[in-house]
Amino acid sequence: MEQTQISTQMRVQGEAAKKAAKRVATASTEEKNKALSLIADELETRETFILEANAKDLEAGRKNGLSSALLDRLTLDSGRIAGMADGCRQIASLEDPIGETIESWTRPNGLKLESVRVPLGVIGMIYEARPNVTADAAALALKTGNGVLLRGSSSAFRSNQAVMDAIWEALAKTSLPKEAVQLASDTSREAAATMFQMNDYLDVLIPRGGANLIKTVVDQSTVPVLETGVGNCHIFIDDSAVADKAVQIAINAKTQRPSVCNAAETLLVHEAWLEAHGEALVHALLAHGVTIRGDASVQKLHGDVEPAADEDWNTEYLDMIVSMKTVKSTEEAIEHINMFTTYHSEAILTESEENKRMFFQQIDAAALYHNASTRFTDGFEFGFGAEIGVSTQKLHARGPMGLKAITSYKYLIHGDGQIK
Amino acid sequence: MEQTQISTQMRVQGEAAKKAAKRVATASTEEKNKALSLIADELETRETFILEANAKDLEAGRKNGLSSALLDRLTLDSGRIAGMADGCRQIASLEDPIGETIESWTRPNGLKLESVRVPLGVIGMIYEARPNVTADAAALALKTGNGVLLRGSSSAFRSNQAVMDAIWEALAKTSLPKEAVQLASDTSREAAATMFQMNDYLDVLIPRGGANLIKTVVDQSTVPVLETGVGNCHIFIDDSAVADKAVQIAINAKTQRPSVCNAAETLLVHEAWLEAHGEALVHALLAHGVTIRGDASVQKLHGDVEPAADEDWNTEYLDMIVSMKTVKSTEEAIEHINMFTTYHSEAILTESEENKRMFFQQIDAAALYHNASTRFTDGFEFGFGAEIGVSTQKLHARGPMGLKAITSYKYLIHGDGQIK
Repeated sequence: MEQTQISTQMRVQGEAAKKAAKRVATASTEEKNKALSLIADELETRETFILEANAKDLEAGRKNGLSSALLDRLTLDSGRIAGMADGCRQIASLEDPIGETIESWTRPNGLKLESVRVPLGVIGMIYEARPNVTADAAALALKTGNGVLLRGSSSAFRSNQAVMDAIWEALAKTSLPKEAVQLASDTSREAAATMFQMNDYLDVLIPRGGANLIKTVVDQSTVPVLETGVGNCHIFIDDSAVADKAVQIAINAKTQRPSVCNAAETLLVHEAWLEAHGEALVHALLAHGVTIRGDASVQKLHGDVEPAADEDWNTEYLDMIVSMKTVKSTEEAIEHINMFTTYHSEAILTESEENKRMFFQQIDAAALYHNASTRFTDGFEFGFGAEIGVSTQKLHARGPMGLKAITSYKYLIHGDGQIK
Repeated sequence: MEQTQISTQMRVQGEAAKKAAKRVATASTEEKNKALSLIADELETRETFILEANAKDLEAGRKNGLSSALLDRLTLDSGRIAGMADGCRQIASLEDPIGETIESWTRPNGLKLESVRVPLGVIGMIYEARPNVTADAAALALKTGNGVLLRGSSSAFRSNQAVMDAIWEALAKTSLPKEAVQLASDTSREAAATMFQMNDYLDVLIPRGGANLIKTVVDQSTVPVLETGVGNCHIFIDDSAVADKAVQIAINAKTQRPSVCNAAETLLVHEAWLEAHGEALVHALLAHGVTIRGDASVQKLHGDVEPAADEDWNTEYLDMIVSMKTVKSTEEAIEHINMFTTYHSEAILTESEENKRMFFQQIDAAALYHNASTRFTDGFEFGFGAEIGVSTQKLHARGPMGLKAITSYKYLIHGDGQIK
């Protein structure tokens, strides 16, 4: 398609989503939960159909030379489809945030005010590979009374379309308009670029993917963006840290799932602790298959420690690699973190209340940990029951975003003739 | 200056604000209130100096042919300077939102979580004429532990600089770094354009001014924007509305201060109410000097009613003009409002609980009124004690923004060795 056609088509879909979103916004909790349950059923019923579509995407992906990591993210199987269906049922089981009175108060002139939670409107989502995001995002949007316009990647188009067919089939059995959930019929850059400017139809854009995708959306979108993603997370081991707990936390934060944004990338170690327990830590990391890039003091502890370069402090490895640096004090650790933080998750391991207090006060990140692994920065671990992503911005929502992150509020003012 | 020089200079100021903001972020309530009190004193001490600078701006403005409205907004006098000083003292008297624990809870694994209110960081503000915004914005930023980079208009540069001199003089007597409050040394378009891209140093941009300024900032800024301003506010008079109250509310919402965003621009009137009370309403409006642009039914009520054109429904007059339209039902009123709303303030005057409920549910605006004037959409009237502006967007803050609108939060997680 030509660019203007793509742009027109995207706007048609956005307009349809906006119109349908008005109906979804006023749907009852029962209506929304029923729809989520039917979507879950339909995803399971259509398993064969979805897997066939996915097989075609995978075949094309292999021909086009997709990396094995991308092919893995693209791959669906029975377990992943069951996971999508379970996700929908689990979201149905969460409390409906819409309609909740957040605050209410009365003014001296008798005006009664209340703030009431409402949907955002239409959410635009731009994402890569994973077809499960299609079901996930649709379910989160419907539960919160929002419409959604999904622009997946071309490599996953057949899979996404098969998932969407299931969603539309399910919605057709409900009182809700299926147009509230839209899969962009085009997966080109132009389609994404059109969404960047669709302020008339989109209330927020959420990019889900790598750092480049996120930066492009932030730089080019006039629609407000919920920025998620990059996590150059640090763990600072203070001189008073309990040795075995510190080693366990460092191993967990680095190795339990290294490819995610809340994994630790740099260990900052107090020189006194390093002298007493550094060898044990380095041995444990190496035994878990972690490559260590350390400063001179760390290198002295084991011949397998590689030298760290300046860029290591700035690198989100997302891999079984960790950088290690010796510091003389909590102040120095704070200074280093404030230089290289991506405002995601930072931890201090210490028995000193004073150092903990200083760390919590002086570091500006979404989640600050005392004596725990950074791996807990996650909507489910926080107890939100769902996760849209981890916000690394400070406006609107910060850190793990649950259902409330895709809601807004309005003020209702009850009077009896008040004038100013 | 050349564009690259302007850009460099703006970034130097942004960097200085960001560095100083870190100190202000951890300042105690006493330190911040002391600074606000000293700023108030210094503004009063320097009255003569500030008025001299203002006189030069006014003289230049008259030579440059500034409109009388702009000259009025630019003009300072003893009363307005006292108003700035009082504003600082009043902001000092408000509760400090920073450090407040918003929520706290414990997870089954023993992790204790809390969300704590923190400053946003550095606020960029781009505004027109009014030099009082300089003191106002500085005071609001300091109270909330934020830095601020102020880019005023060239027509007010001497006045703004004189106000800033007072602020810096006062801050020099405190423990807080004066660099936290920066007045852009350049007032060109390039200076503003540089701010649009200063994501490294600015956490939010707030435009204060006309619709064009706001649109430019929204369209061009990669820094997140808090959009304020445009208010095409409606009042719907339902058939059951009490006649004299409805007339009083309509008169108040239109005439009490027509130049502001919460003034009413369109009156939608139920045909039955119009037949019974329309003449009284039209007479009252005309008696208050309001020009009425009405549909055919309204025109029949008085010879002075001008015909309304299509564009009237879309116009924020900000003047003593009102458009009037007859509707057959609450549904029709809601449909009209949803077509032309700017998401600011909308009112229904009715004795029907059912129609009120429908109106409150189906209209998407920051503030919805029942039987009261739209003029109450204001941070002071809502009881927030301060106002940054009225947000017409749905992310982050909606409606009147008080101190909390320029704060964020961070999660503090207290563990004792938890790993995932």
